[in-house]
Amino acid sequence: MSLIVQKYGGSSVADAECMKRVAQRVLDTQKAGNSVVVVVSAMGDTTDDLIDLAKKINPQPDDRELDALMATGEQISCAVLAMALHAEGAQAVSMTGPQAGIFVDEVHTKAKIMTIKPARVFKQLKKGNIVIVAGFQGLNPNQDIATLGRGGSDTTAVALAAALKADRCQILKDVEGVYTANPRVVPEARKLDEIAYDEMLELASMGAEVLQSRAVEFAKKYGVELEVLSSFTNKPGTVVREEVKKMEDIVVRGVAADKKQAKVTIMQVPDQPGVAANLFKQLAAAHINVDMIVQNVSEQAHTDISFTAPVDDLAKAKNVVEPLLKKIGAKGVNYDNDIAKISIVGVGMKSHSGVAYRMFEALAANKINIEMISTSEIKISVVIRGKQADKAVQVLHKAFELGKKSKKK
Amino acid sequence: MSLIVQKYGGSSVADAECMKRVAQRVLDTQKAGNSVVVVVSAMGDTTDDLIDLAKKINPQPDDRELDALMATGEQISCAVLAMALHAEGAQAVSMTGPQAGIFVDEVHTKAKIMTIKPARVFKQLKKGNIVIVAGFQGLNPNQDIATLGRGGSDTTAVALAAALKADRCQILKDVEGVYTANPRVVPEARKLDEIAYDEMLELASMGAEVLQSRAVEFAKKYGVELEVLSSFTNKPGTVVREEVKKMEDIVVRGVAADKKQAKVTIMQVPDQPGVAANLFKQLAAAHINVDMIVQNVSEQAHTDISFTAPVDDLAKAKNVVEPLLKKIGAKGVNYDNDIAKISIVGVGMKSHSGVAYRMFEALAANKINIEMISTSEIKISVVIRGKQADKAVQVLHKAFELGKKSKKK
Repeated sequence: MSLIVQKYGGSSVADAECMKRVAQRVLDTQKAGNSVVVVVSAMGDTTDDLIDLAKKINPQPDDRELDALMATGEQISCAVLAMALHAEGAQAVSMTGPQAGIFVDEVHTKAKIMTIKPARVFKQLKKGNIVIVAGFQGLNPNQDIATLGRGGSDTTAVALAAALKADRCQILKDVEGVYTANPRVVPEARKLDEIAYDEMLELASMGAEVLQSRAVEFAKKYGVELEVLSSFTNKPGTVVREEVKKMEDIVVRGVAADKKQAKVTIMQVPDQPGVAANLFKQLAAAHINVDMIVQNVSEQAHTDISFTAPVDDLAKAKNVVEPLLKKIGAKGVNYDNDIAKISIVGVGMKSHSGVAYRMFEALAANKINIEMISTSEIKISVVIRGKQADKAVQVLHKAFELGKKSKKK
Repeated sequence: MSLIVQKYGGSSVADAECMKRVAQRVLDTQKAGNSVVVVVSAMGDTTDDLIDLAKKINPQPDDRELDALMATGEQISCAVLAMALHAEGAQAVSMTGPQAGIFVDEVHTKAKIMTIKPARVFKQLKKGNIVIVAGFQGLNPNQDIATLGRGGSDTTAVALAAALKADRCQILKDVEGVYTANPRVVPEARKLDEIAYDEMLELASMGAEVLQSRAVEFAKKYGVELEVLSSFTNKPGTVVREEVKKMEDIVVRGVAADKKQAKVTIMQVPDQPGVAANLFKQLAAAHINVDMIVQNVSEQAHTDISFTAPVDDLAKAKNVVEPLLKKIGAKGVNYDNDIAKISIVGVGMKSHSGVAYRMFEALAANKINIEMISTSEIKISVVIRGKQADKAVQVLHKAFELGKKSKKK
């Protein structure tokens, strides 16, 4: 008997009909001889609706209260899924994050899971129950509910799978798996059968919205075998797993675009030691996820510092940056949220050269100007104008022949 | 400095605009030099919408899951009210029932408050915070959230006021106080300045939907001074308090109609000791609030037993009654939910005679047939046909001259 953790996203549980379909699928999984723990997101647009309500009341809602508000979305869907399972004659019990023993740190709206004490989940599984856990939430040291940030339900599922030593963690979505690129942008994009944790990690953090990066990190850290698959079909999905040697045959696994980043440029900063450190220390203290950082060379002992951060963090970033300008003697600051970050990812890059060159050439040939560059062992990211994002993805997908299966590139 | 507990009902917090108005009023109360604890119901029709969602999924949803689902309604409104107060520059913090230290028993959807440990509420008040508590809910011994049943937020407010030794508990509603009768049915109905706990208790349990009976019981038990007033005006409301001698000058304080009762008649029950006891024991075990009970005299050593219970409990009542029919040798059962219970209430009845006679005569003169009668020291209730309810209330309001102020009747 296997233990399977299944996670259903918001669009898979959007309404009563969807819930019934999910209940059927969960029950089928149990009937196939498995113990099943289900993690659910909020139904459809619930989270967005709650945030809209909050902002109507207060444009800058308090994070603790926002968490208390948003956490209800998942509590609703897990209770409703339990009812749907009961209607099918199944034994099922819902739990909030705190009830499932999920303990998180104090950073509201972006909390991290610190530990899971799954005794209550085990107890209910032993009784033959399907256990449904509210994703995206946990109890913090102040005994307050806190949320894990967007996509946090994936993390809940993987962390629970690790804590329960589950045999597999399935992430069920409205897509059939991980693609070489977003199929809405690149019609010839191809579903991958497998992908390495590290590749998935880069793709996830690069805006491929299939899996949340923290979920993949967790899976990698605890060796949880993840499968991304469709909740609407019964086809096998994409398995995310430990890298094996033959994966390196593929130089580029996929290409992703992230349009939710903004670029902040602090102009004419005196080129002295410690200035940048001080800036990024304060951004970190404000829990802003700074991504790419570029410091441009300049004459006159001054330099421009640019960094990217999620558009949603821009207001907070302004609060950090602006009081600092005078202190560090900078001339000004510029915000630009009409950018896109385009990344190509593949473990094969480690053993193949000339990948960056091929990328830049393909973009240049299509009149796409590169504004920032950042590389790692297995990915290359560039920042370009936002409106050129789709074009860039199409160009790169073609340049690296990602539409063709398993050919060496 | 006084400590005031204010409770706002669903229609007072129906949308963002209402929330802002409530925030302003709460803040005014604090600025007048009070510590304020606020108890909120779910916004507008949220609870009904959640129940509708549940029933779409499962016509007989599990009570534990229904509680988990419904409890989110109040959690949403208290987080949102905290945000609205922050927008006004106030210090405020929201708490779920469990966070506020509200512990309840195990009866899901109808839980009773067992104890309140308000340490966390006190701590936040001491910090100068307005504390907003989710009404209608508490933590049960299984560490599950349970709800107190319809109108339970009133009970939360009164119980908190008792636990905090508050100076006053204000119940803010969309009506200006307690009326001699429902003003929508009787245009000349008059707002009462004061009413005794016992009178309010009878009116509340008789379907005057101003206050929940359990809240009044709690207030009486702990001597909490209650005020029912409008959240939309600044007029004084109705104070519910200990009975004083002069209140007895008024024979009838008010008249109420309850259209949410159903009548169950078990026909031709053998007239043996213990039969009725067994029936009502089992109804109690199923947590059905049986109200009036009438056993009709009959020939042939058989008797008809009728009782009334809330329409919502009818399905459960059927489950109890039908397996019993054969066992007790009854001939059949009849369900009737087209009834209304009409009650007149007043502490003055204790010292005035002929009240019942005047009631029955007024009804008879208007061709309203009485099917069941039940009396207490301070109230007389009759069951009549449902469609005659409004007429009966109008007739009785006039017969006892309730539209005229403070005249001895």
